[in-house]
Amino acid sequence: MHVLLIPDIPTDNADRLLVEGDEARHAIRVKRVRRGEQVVVLDGKGTLLRCLAEPAGRDLELVIQETEHAEPVRPAVHVCSATPKGARVEQLVDSLVQVGAASWTPMLTKLGVVDPRENKLDRLQRIASEALKQARRPYAMELRPKSPLGDVISGGGDAELVIAHSGGSEYRASGAPEIRVLIGPEGGFLPEEIDAAARAGAQIVTFGPHTMRIEAAGPAAVTTVLAAERCNDNNSHRENTA
Amino acid sequence: MHVLLIPDIPTDNADRLLVEGDEARHAIRVKRVRRGEQVVVLDGKGTLLRCLAEPAGRDLELVIQETEHAEPVRPAVHVCSATPKGARVEQLVDSLVQVGAASWTPMLTKLGVVDPRENKLDRLQRIASEALKQARRPYAMELRPKSPLGDVISGGGDAELVIAHSGGSEYRASGAPEIRVLIGPEGGFLPEEIDAAARAGAQIVTFGPHTMRIEAAGPAAVTTVLAAERCNDNNSHRENTA
Repeated sequence: MHVLLIPDIPTDNADRLLVEGDEARHAIRVKRVRRGEQVVVLDGKGTLLRCLAEPAGRDLELVIQETEHAEPVRPAVHVCSATPKGARVEQLVDSLVQVGAASWTPMLTKLGVVDPRENKLDRLQRIASEALKQARRPYAMELRPKSPLGDVISGGGDAELVIAHSGGSEYRASGAPEIRVLIGPEGGFLPEEIDAAARAGAQIVTFGPHTMRIEAAGPAAVTTVLAAERCNDNNSHRENTA
Repeated sequence: MHVLLIPDIPTDNADRLLVEGDEARHAIRVKRVRRGEQVVVLDGKGTLLRCLAEPAGRDLELVIQETEHAEPVRPAVHVCSATPKGARVEQLVDSLVQVGAASWTPMLTKLGVVDPRENKLDRLQRIASEALKQARRPYAMELRPKSPLGDVISGGGDAELVIAHSGGSEYRASGAPEIRVLIGPEGGFLPEEIDAAARAGAQIVTFGPHTMRIEAAGPAAVTTVLAAERCNDNNSHRENTA
């Protein structure tokens, strides 16, 4: 079933939607969506529409059958990591969308060697959008501006802070609604960087038995945090109702 | 620090090791390992040697300084999945090595469209070996022969069985030393396939909030299982010593 991403779905409760431009052209010419076919529309802000397609020339008219509103994934896990080299940054962004990260921030550290370039942002945005459609993910993952480690550590507000380090402990669920995970470059974090995070109250956590590259470590961290927080949430409910 | 993979390290307690062939050539010509440089040798069977390099012509002599023996990752998580298309299968194997999977089995299901070809196995073996070296992973990940879902379900021995399904529950740790995780193709498992696994005692588990592609789902499953089992193990120890 074809999925379209349309960031500004009209909110006037109309039962038809007109799709123009690239999304329409791609649906009609590449995906060959035909009259009467079912199509899903996402707006990246929690709305999912189930529609029937009515191709009309170069545009695509959709008849809206059902409207769903989803809650965002909780907790919100924000990944701040060094930037992998080359195409690996695309794999990182794609994987983070699939596993449910709330955002990705390219983070600048002492031993990081790759400076994320602004002109790559468009490409990463397209990759994030494609991954969102494939995963039927209701909320878009934010691609945030690059930020030095110090700012990431101090700028987290009430977010629970977690720094990934192979010598760390297992992740401890906290029930926090926002969690910020810091992933270092291939050369690792310097001891002073780990200390700075620890002084700011960060958990020092290992997310796997081996040294992982950034594009594997980020998704592993998100997966671990979400599973632990959801498990913790279930346990709290059981205790409260016991 | 350069890492070499040498499957058959002599066990005669000699303090020198002669490396020939491809590994030697790659170390000397490509990585430009110099006399006196530190080098790590893995055999993929748990042994790690820390050595000093003594390039000698086309061969590489190593002076062994330290020998370490590692325990395998426990529990052993065996991933049985449909085969992703194209280069994505390489990403799957690479990621599974990094996150600590014990083995990967290409699994044949009703809706799976990609048949893993034997001639790709060499390439996947090279990718697994490179990933092992980068991760300093002591034990090689097994690449097992392809197997139909039915055989995977019935042939698990005492392994705990887990089938990934978006409608499933959170993973429950069992303390089992061997765990077999089944990941379906892009089209998903058929209801009869889920039923067959459930009848064989499988947990039906969701490993994330969104639909993941195979190469993201496999590593997410391994990460979740290992974290839950290690957490469970810690809790048991705490209860036993309380």
